[in-house]
Amino acid sequence: MIITLTTDFGWSDPFVGIMKGVILGIAPGAQIVDITHDVAAYDITEAAFVVLSSYRYFPAGTVHVVVVDPGVGTARRPIAAQAGGHYFVAPDNGVLSFVLHSEAEPPAVHHIANRELFRTPVGHTFHGRDIFAPIGAHLATGIHLDSVGEPITDFMSRPLPKAEPRGEGRLTARVIRIDRFGNIITDLQANDLGDNFNIRIGGVDVTRLCRTFAEGTPGEFVAVEGSTGYIEIAQNQGAAADRLRVSRGEEIEVETGVLNH
Amino acid sequence: MIITLTTDFGWSDPFVGIMKGVILGIAPGAQIVDITHDVAAYDITEAAFVVLSSYRYFPAGTVHVVVVDPGVGTARRPIAAQAGGHYFVAPDNGVLSFVLHSEAEPPAVHHIANRELFRTPVGHTFHGRDIFAPIGAHLATGIHLDSVGEPITDFMSRPLPKAEPRGEGRLTARVIRIDRFGNIITDLQANDLGDNFNIRIGGVDVTRLCRTFAEGTPGEFVAVEGSTGYIEIAQNQGAAADRLRVSRGEEIEVETGVLNH
Amino acid sequence: MIITLTTDFGWSDPFVGIMKGVILGIAPGAQIVDITHDVAAYDITEAAFVVLSSYRYFPAGTVHVVVVDPGVGTARRPIAAQAGGHYFVAPDNGVLSFVLHSEAEPPAVHHIANRELFRTPVGHTFHGRDIFAPIGAHLATGIHLDSVGEPITDFMSRPLPKAEPRGEGRLTARVIRIDRFGNIITDLQANDLGDNFNIRIGGVDVTRLCRTFAEGTPGEFVAVEGSTGYIEIAQNQGAAADRLRVSRGEEIEVETGVLNH
Repeated sequence: MIITLTTDFGWSDPFVGIMKGVILGIAPGAQIVDITHDVAAYDITEAAFVVLSSYRYFPAGTVHVVVVDPGVGTARRPIAAQAGGHYFVAPDNGVLSFVLHSEAEPPAVHHIANRELFRTPVGHTFHGRDIFAPIGAHLATGIHLDSVGEPITDFMSRPLPKAEPRGEGRLTARVIRIDRFGNIITDLQANDLGDNFNIRIGGVDVTRLCRTFAEGTPGEFVAVEGSTGYIEIAQNQGAAADRLRVSRGEEIEVETGVLNH
Repeated sequence: MIITLTTDFGWSDPFVGIMKGVILGIAPGAQIVDITHDVAAYDITEAAFVVLSSYRYFPAGTVHVVVVDPGVGTARRPIAAQAGGHYFVAPDNGVLSFVLHSEAEPPAVHHIANRELFRTPVGHTFHGRDIFAPIGAHLATGIHLDSVGEPITDFMSRPLPKAEPRGEGRLTARVIRIDRFGNIITDLQANDLGDNFNIRIGGVDVTRLCRTFAEGTPGEFVAVEGSTGYIEIAQNQGAAADRLRVSRGEEIEVETGVLNH
Repeated sequence: MIITLTTDFGWSDPFVGIMKGVILGIAPGAQIVDITHDVAAYDITEAAFVVLSSYRYFPAGTVHVVVVDPGVGTARRPIAAQAGGHYFVAPDNGVLSFVLHSEAEPPAVHHIANRELFRTPVGHTFHGRDIFAPIGAHLATGIHLDSVGEPITDFMSRPLPKAEPRGEGRLTARVIRIDRFGNIITDLQANDLGDNFNIRIGGVDVTRLCRTFAEGTPGEFVAVEGSTGYIEIAQNQGAAADRLRVSRGEEIEVETGVLNH
């Protein structure tokens, strides 16, 4: 049984280690895998994207625990879900919505309410420890979703990031994320671009779709379909985001179709 | 068998991975959990606090290896201890003293001296690899504390962090730690504060004890009893430490009782 | 079965977690150990040094997966090797050459070409996920190196870092790495220095070889034979690299033999 953890807790505090202690107390043989704990503090959209990018690569039956929880201690519900053969445990703040949208079958989503499965007393500031870790561990040991609480359908939903059409041959895209190498992950997908395109970003025009990062000539900025399926703007062995001074959330103008540059 | 690791080795060097290799050579099935490796270099007090904050959440029998060791290679002793059903392995520099103070029963502390259990040759610069990891692994496999060396009682002790009374209705507290969210962890506990209090910190007055971080109004600085049991100064979705320009070790003036503000 | 991971992927993106998911799908009981993911982006030499410094501390039979791969998606070959009882999986860009040089027996190196063992479809940007993780996992489950592809002898080789003699009693050394504590790891070895030496670095003269970091007097810069076997320049509880403003790659002048200072 595998449990993954995605949080905004960072690596410096003992929060993540504490969650693992709680998990191993309930599910002694569990294999716990850190996806990342460097989600920007309180950034639900980034966490949703990280979970969407990673869960499919785990074996069916894996439990994914996601704790980015600006509303900890308030009335927001904790939820547990099953989708595409995987389990998910998180606060009901939209952090699971990309993954719940991405599967063909409708997901089963339950409101976590069975306090017998919680660590007690439940604190007000660290539900990762008291609710999400124990529920994830119990699911990993094989309990049924019905045991955690009633099914619900009104869980919070956020739309998947997607470039917006702006009339004939124009799109407004957005920077979703910058990765470790300075590659700029956009909300464009390959079929948004077609054969000819011009991506205007950070004062340069990117017009070439390459298969690999290494295909670009020195200094050239190219588009690459990244491992997440989204278009990334990259520079061969360079950090595109630093060079172009582009950051997360920034808008990008895109023209497609026959271009006269 | 679970072994936790708390060090100031950081995540960039191979030190932690090397310790894990040594552990798995001795205790092949061990589950190794990182608490953190971001303790400030040589900061014994911070490490002591991290261990105190985390060990209780692990199952009984867990071995906690703590390596913050400015005196590596000198005469300071390595020690192994049992307290509250947990095992601890560390240099005798006070890094275990908070945890050894925190249990009702007196701890058993032994001077690690049985060189047959060490990795040899023992180097002068990396006892995490040559002494602490192997002893932790041997304890995880079930050897008795007596096998590592003689019991001692003169191990080094540091007092738990605690706000100091300054006469009627006044305390001087101190910042123990800043967490990833910018919450300011103090050495105040809820019963230090009573019903009315004024915490003067970074030029503002904090007078309200909230149950959750999210309870504060936008911009408000509030006191919250954190997951460690200590009072934290926090701002709802803000980084209090950045806003107040407060850092670790800073003194805080506190008034309690009937206040006329 | 143990699999170690050394990459330049950082800890913030889901890349490492994804590789672990792929590994656990193929080798369900594998124990996965992070050596580090903070190798500087694209820095093959640093990764080669990290692997050399760490692999020996793991039990025989461990599989070491190393992904620092500026040429991902180009014609550079993936390779799998056996040396000193350990397995290694990496791109053929020299990242394994220190370790392959360091064993007495000649290593067995195979060109990874058996696509049946890959994750499919193989992407162009993330061979860590699609080739290196699955091959590492298959080797951990016990398949023979012959199953991954043909043996080769023309794999890429880089010389081990080594201080260069500059005539009688003079050497030019180089900074290989700065560790977390600011210790300056050089390519000097103890037998390069002899009994009398003067290491000129960052404007100071280091003339004393100590057994431990703690042996230096306050403020003194000393030479220590580090845990890697290379000479390190250190300051007792200080960060030598910061004080001396020395960084990776910098040249160091060394005099040895009878000195008249």
